[in-house]
Amino acid sequence: MLEKRVANVQQLMRDNNVDYMLLAPTPNMFYLTGLETSPDERLQLLIVPGEGPLEVVIPEMYAETAEEKGDKFNLHTWADHENPVEIVGDIVRAEEGGAIAVDQKMWAGHFLSIKPLFQGCSFVDANLIMSPARVIKDSRELELLKEAGELADQVMELAAQEIRVGLMERELVLFIENKLKTLGAEGLSFSPIVASGPNASSPHHIPGDRQFEKGDFIVLDFGGKVGGYCSDITRTFCIGEASNKAKQVHRIVQEANEKGYFASTAGTPCEDVDRAAREVIDQAGYGEYFIHRTGHGIGLDCHEDPYIVEGNITLLEQGMTFSIEPGIYLPGEMGVRIEDIAAVTEEGPVRFNNFPRGLIEL
Amino acid sequence: MLEKRVANVQQLMRDNNVDYMLLAPTPNMFYLTGLETSPDERLQLLIVPGEGPLEVVIPEMYAETAEEKGDKFNLHTWADHENPVEIVGDIVRAEEGGAIAVDQKMWAGHFLSIKPLFQGCSFVDANLIMSPARVIKDSRELELLKEAGELADQVMELAAQEIRVGLMERELVLFIENKLKTLGAEGLSFSPIVASGPNASSPHHIPGDRQFEKGDFIVLDFGGKVGGYCSDITRTFCIGEASNKAKQVHRIVQEANEKGYFASTAGTPCEDVDRAAREVIDQAGYGEYFIHRTGHGIGLDCHEDPYIVEGNITLLEQGMTFSIEPGIYLPGEMGVRIEDIAAVTEEGPVRFNNFPRGLIEL
Repeated sequence: MLEKRVANVQQLMRDNNVDYMLLAPTPNMFYLTGLETSPDERLQLLIVPGEGPLEVVIPEMYAETAEEKGDKFNLHTWADHENPVEIVGDIVRAEEGGAIAVDQKMWAGHFLSIKPLFQGCSFVDANLIMSPARVIKDSRELELLKEAGELADQVMELAAQEIRVGLMERELVLFIENKLKTLGAEGLSFSPIVASGPNASSPHHIPGDRQFEKGDFIVLDFGGKVGGYCSDITRTFCIGEASNKAKQVHRIVQEANEKGYFASTAGTPCEDVDRAAREVIDQAGYGEYFIHRTGHGIGLDCHEDPYIVEGNITLLEQGMTFSIEPGIYLPGEMGVRIEDIAAVTEEGPVRFNNFPRGLIEL
Repeated sequence: MLEKRVANVQQLMRDNNVDYMLLAPTPNMFYLTGLETSPDERLQLLIVPGEGPLEVVIPEMYAETAEEKGDKFNLHTWADHENPVEIVGDIVRAEEGGAIAVDQKMWAGHFLSIKPLFQGCSFVDANLIMSPARVIKDSRELELLKEAGELADQVMELAAQEIRVGLMERELVLFIENKLKTLGAEGLSFSPIVASGPNASSPHHIPGDRQFEKGDFIVLDFGGKVGGYCSDITRTFCIGEASNKAKQVHRIVQEANEKGYFASTAGTPCEDVDRAAREVIDQAGYGEYFIHRTGHGIGLDCHEDPYIVEGNITLLEQGMTFSIEPGIYLPGEMGVRIEDIAAVTEEGPVRFNNFPRGLIEL
């Protein structure tokens, strides 16, 4: 499987006249080698040439981990008192005018340290190569995304049962993290969002000490990783009975979610899916309060191509997976977001999240 | 406080002929603005000019968070269908031949997207400016580091009580995360390391399903953040009685830790602290199994200057804080590491971790 991926990526490099691709310890490195280490100030680099074997430069302290995958690449280790840039310099033979692809998530500090080895070269974001390779999921990847989605559904149900007046946002965050990890996630897709009452008008609110109150709308947004693949689900609950206005806002967002979902068919431009969801909210008069795109691709990264956003004319294809997550955010008042992961299939869109989307008053 | 920090940093920029500093949502941004958001594929940028006000470019969806700190900088928000690079272009006036400092942790993808705005400029790692500013901790910072250290000690004691035959590494990781967060940490310094038996010979082992066995050496390495400041502690326990060899290895590492600690006085070069610890291990015949530097600076980042490593001739000064963490790693067999955070003071070194360092057989 890895060999096939590498061959595909190297073909894409040659098609795009890219001489070397420099990847950091990110999902890109995992996708091509199975190696999974954490990025830090020590240089870790996967060098992908246009053809020939992969080269991995890694600190000595990661050698044991890397040797387990050792037949997939040539391994070069360096000790803390050595300069890894010299090792990289011995491996690469960059020619003036060459094109070098750089991992989107590589630290700029690392990039600047190796950049002098590529005098006269131009640099492009490695997504140019990696996105086309990773954007279409194979059946094994789809299965893992489905598993991750089912786990997220299960945790959403448990989290909903925990919601009560007086509970702090960060207490519920901890509950969600624990459930994800004990029920099968090897890690979090991102730090869970629990945004209550007025805090929910900030889409990426950092959960804190606020205690839930009667009448609060509460946005829960989280996901866990299964086999490296992410889930990402959002639901909005109400403690007690919702006001008529709040109910209406929730209904509009739910309809936008439905419209976006049903628009997600092969051959449809990404921006049309965004428009389908956005029109519902625009027409209801809340357009200015839907302050983000409708969705993002998902896979080994929680956010990756394809982005469901105005201006993205990429046509959806079978095997693409992404979120549909419209929202309405009324500053200082409340917020509602409803998010599922959808996949494009031959039979139309399929959802990996099936927890009820209608308003639940707890 | 923030004003003073900004003035200091801008003075350092002028001293180093740096025209602009471009910072990402990292501890650097927090240090200068108090802003704390998560990095992702949406461009978030703090532009620090050599003089004059700070400029923050941030997605519309983070506007509420940023407005709370709004008097500290000029705020520029962008919507998902807009191109933030154009906004940055309207702000900066880079001259050919200028020098631009770039956040060490900025994603290369973001750097490449804004790089064309700085034609003919040279780029340096922003640590050139930020490290000298951040490396000396003031009394408030030292207080937070001390608090974080005490919390880590407390959790080490609780974690030690949990260790028993049959417990999985990842179960203890979850226990540690929960205790850190419920006892006062707002987040983790890094994903906790629990490495048991032969797994402990990999210093950055990724905890998994392995269950503890009688006679195992178990390395626990973790830390939590308090007020943004990190702790980082490592202890190595034994389940049941340790073999004579294992006891000896532990004793050697403990002595190396002591020697490194007592060498940490103002005016001492960083590499001499490394050498003090390393000599103990070298002389005991285990030199080739101490496969990393002796320590790293710590503050808002868990790893920052000063690094306690051969070749670093920086002289220690009062207010510097760093780890002392020698280890011995016998491949496929066992590992021992003992780590504390130390601060350089007028009266010599002070430790922020005081959990017993001697071998505890559980």
